[in-house]
Amino acid sequence: MAGESRIVTFLSDFGEEDGYTGIVQGVILGRAPDARVVDLTHHVPPQNVTAGALVLDSAVPYFPDETVHLAVVDPGVGSDRRALAIETDRGFLVGPDNGLLSIASRWAGIRRIVDLDRPEAFLQGTSRTFHGRDVFAPVAARLARGENLETLGSLVSEFVELELPKPVLQGGSVEGQVLYVDHFGNLVSNVRREHLVAFRGRRLSVSLDSVTIGEISTHYGAVAEGAPLALWNSWDHLEVAVRNGSAAHVFRATAETPVRITVSKEPR
Amino acid sequence: MAGESRIVTFLSDFGEEDGYTGIVQGVILGRAPDARVVDLTHHVPPQNVTAGALVLDSAVPYFPDETVHLAVVDPGVGSDRRALAIETDRGFLVGPDNGLLSIASRWAGIRRIVDLDRPEAFLQGTSRTFHGRDVFAPVAARLARGENLETLGSLVSEFVELELPKPVLQGGSVEGQVLYVDHFGNLVSNVRREHLVAFRGRRLSVSLDSVTIGEISTHYGAVAEGAPLALWNSWDHLEVAVRNGSAAHVFRATAETPVRITVSKEPR
Amino acid sequence: MAGESRIVTFLSDFGEEDGYTGIVQGVILGRAPDARVVDLTHHVPPQNVTAGALVLDSAVPYFPDETVHLAVVDPGVGSDRRALAIETDRGFLVGPDNGLLSIASRWAGIRRIVDLDRPEAFLQGTSRTFHGRDVFAPVAARLARGENLETLGSLVSEFVELELPKPVLQGGSVEGQVLYVDHFGNLVSNVRREHLVAFRGRRLSVSLDSVTIGEISTHYGAVAEGAPLALWNSWDHLEVAVRNGSAAHVFRATAETPVRITVSKEPR
Repeated sequence: MAGESRIVTFLSDFGEEDGYTGIVQGVILGRAPDARVVDLTHHVPPQNVTAGALVLDSAVPYFPDETVHLAVVDPGVGSDRRALAIETDRGFLVGPDNGLLSIASRWAGIRRIVDLDRPEAFLQGTSRTFHGRDVFAPVAARLARGENLETLGSLVSEFVELELPKPVLQGGSVEGQVLYVDHFGNLVSNVRREHLVAFRGRRLSVSLDSVTIGEISTHYGAVAEGAPLALWNSWDHLEVAVRNGSAAHVFRATAETPVRITVSKEPR
Repeated sequence: MAGESRIVTFLSDFGEEDGYTGIVQGVILGRAPDARVVDLTHHVPPQNVTAGALVLDSAVPYFPDETVHLAVVDPGVGSDRRALAIETDRGFLVGPDNGLLSIASRWAGIRRIVDLDRPEAFLQGTSRTFHGRDVFAPVAARLARGENLETLGSLVSEFVELELPKPVLQGGSVEGQVLYVDHFGNLVSNVRREHLVAFRGRRLSVSLDSVTIGEISTHYGAVAEGAPLALWNSWDHLEVAVRNGSAAHVFRATAETPVRITVSKEPR
Repeated sequence: MAGESRIVTFLSDFGEEDGYTGIVQGVILGRAPDARVVDLTHHVPPQNVTAGALVLDSAVPYFPDETVHLAVVDPGVGSDRRALAIETDRGFLVGPDNGLLSIASRWAGIRRIVDLDRPEAFLQGTSRTFHGRDVFAPVAARLARGENLETLGSLVSEFVELELPKPVLQGGSVEGQVLYVDHFGNLVSNVRREHLVAFRGRRLSVSLDSVTIGEISTHYGAVAEGAPLALWNSWDHLEVAVRNGSAAHVFRATAETPVRITVSKEPR
């Protein structure tokens, strides 16, 4: 049966010290022995739903259709926040209804959403502290085995959407901000190519806060060692980086640091 | 053959920087190509056998029967400490005889214990520095393939037991302590429900060191953001936490910080 | 088909925060669904090609023949540095042509090297920032499926070799240095048994910088808790360690700290 060998990706803020991620894998493999579990990351900053949603969104396009994406960043665990499973054109997403799944599932094309309101689909004796283990893992395993979404809960038409800050065009410049700082200290902004269409064909200049970074480079090696640059990153977001260094460290920048794009005064 | 696709869990204090955990997986998969290796954690604090034993114990119940649990926190590697494989009602445990396996194997129901005294079951040219690779991984692979325990060593009847501090009932209060601090800064104590039977039906109050935390909540969201709470955690231990924060940080608490449970003066 | 279940090991400096390693796994499993991906480490210090090459070299001997070793520490991504796939007597190595693969592939016995110059083997729309995802992962997947090396690029006869500092025999002592500091703070030097042949049968004494460590022990437990020792480590390199402690911390030592071996004045 094809469904039995589906991939299950797993993203969380659990860290890797305590065995929590392994326990979730145990629950999945006990119920779907042929599933292939792929850890996306377990180092989402604790309870940072936005960071989790961005990483999930960057990863989903690179997995086969029918993959099950399990994501747990869940500050509301045990409260009345809903638990969701979403069927999309590009596989399934399972997690809390707090916006974590919203960016990736919009991109992937939502078909059906269910509220996971059937305790018989969960582990017996469900806790109110660890739904990753007790609720989401058994549901992900059932989807990995090819079980129909509607056996797992009631169809719903709405879910919590994450509102990301959007860049604004203002006085001839696009004003964005850093959304995410990665492991290398690269500063991923909220600016995408579509935000710069008004500037098409013009030579551009990128600034970070009050520092001029310069034009948009094609790759990290386009500047000297230790020099800053802007480029379209692997998510297709505008990124400010330092070649073989950490832009976050050099510029003391964090999420929300302003990023501005203007038309350069030099001719192209 | 069913045995060939057994799960092998792997817990250690190796960290993930040096490739040591991957090497152990290579040895396992070279000998049991269909085994499914699940990393529990490799971030046990270096040489902290107690922390490793607690994490292992929290994970074993969530894996299928016949799983092989490989655990290596091994300050005595190369000395004359014994190496063990244990058959239980809930799978196998493999590791050094220093107490690491004792809590989980007692829970799982011990059937047979062997002293791994047959070098022909190991890697050729066994080192005295890396038994995870040279001794325990080949043995775990053999068990994952369904090999009989008694081909791997001599039956023994005793092993090193870990002595955890037990809560004591004293002057109308139960005096326990923090055993383990997790990734979120939650403080897991040694108090379990069975220690509070004398208080059944009474309203309780939990204190951490000299700070009153309050009654036992049902879930993290039962208190305001940033407020402390006590609750039964996902291991069924009494835990002191801070909602969406770190109790370890807020209260400067660590393993051994006292936890006291008393009958509350307020009526239930 | 046997080739379909090959192991793919994966080493990088990507860290585990951002989902980059999971994305690479998604690309591999989408193209080679039965491959077994084993993470060696993703914590190579950013852009430290030498550390990556040493860890890779320590791991390759412990994997089955035909394993595909994917390694990405790639400060030159997007520049004109070549991308390589190497067939050896002990499996395949895939990664940038910057020395990262050179030590392990020399050990494993090089058969053929190809320059990955065929974009049709890559992901469509290859970026200039993330060749791990766009170039190396698809190539590793093709090799895991048993595709012939020469369909992936043009045969070449040379590649970038990493030059490691070699110990020197000088005035009756062997002068080496620390190459690598591991998770436990053990100091792995560049001294191997072959460098000490002139001293065969003599009692030796090891020094770290200006501190005398003493003779070469057989295992960590040969000295008292907290005492320093030298021993042949699991890579068969001479290592300076502190029993149940961190030699890096105690001696404030790092890569390049001198290690000296002399003949001891005490009789054997």
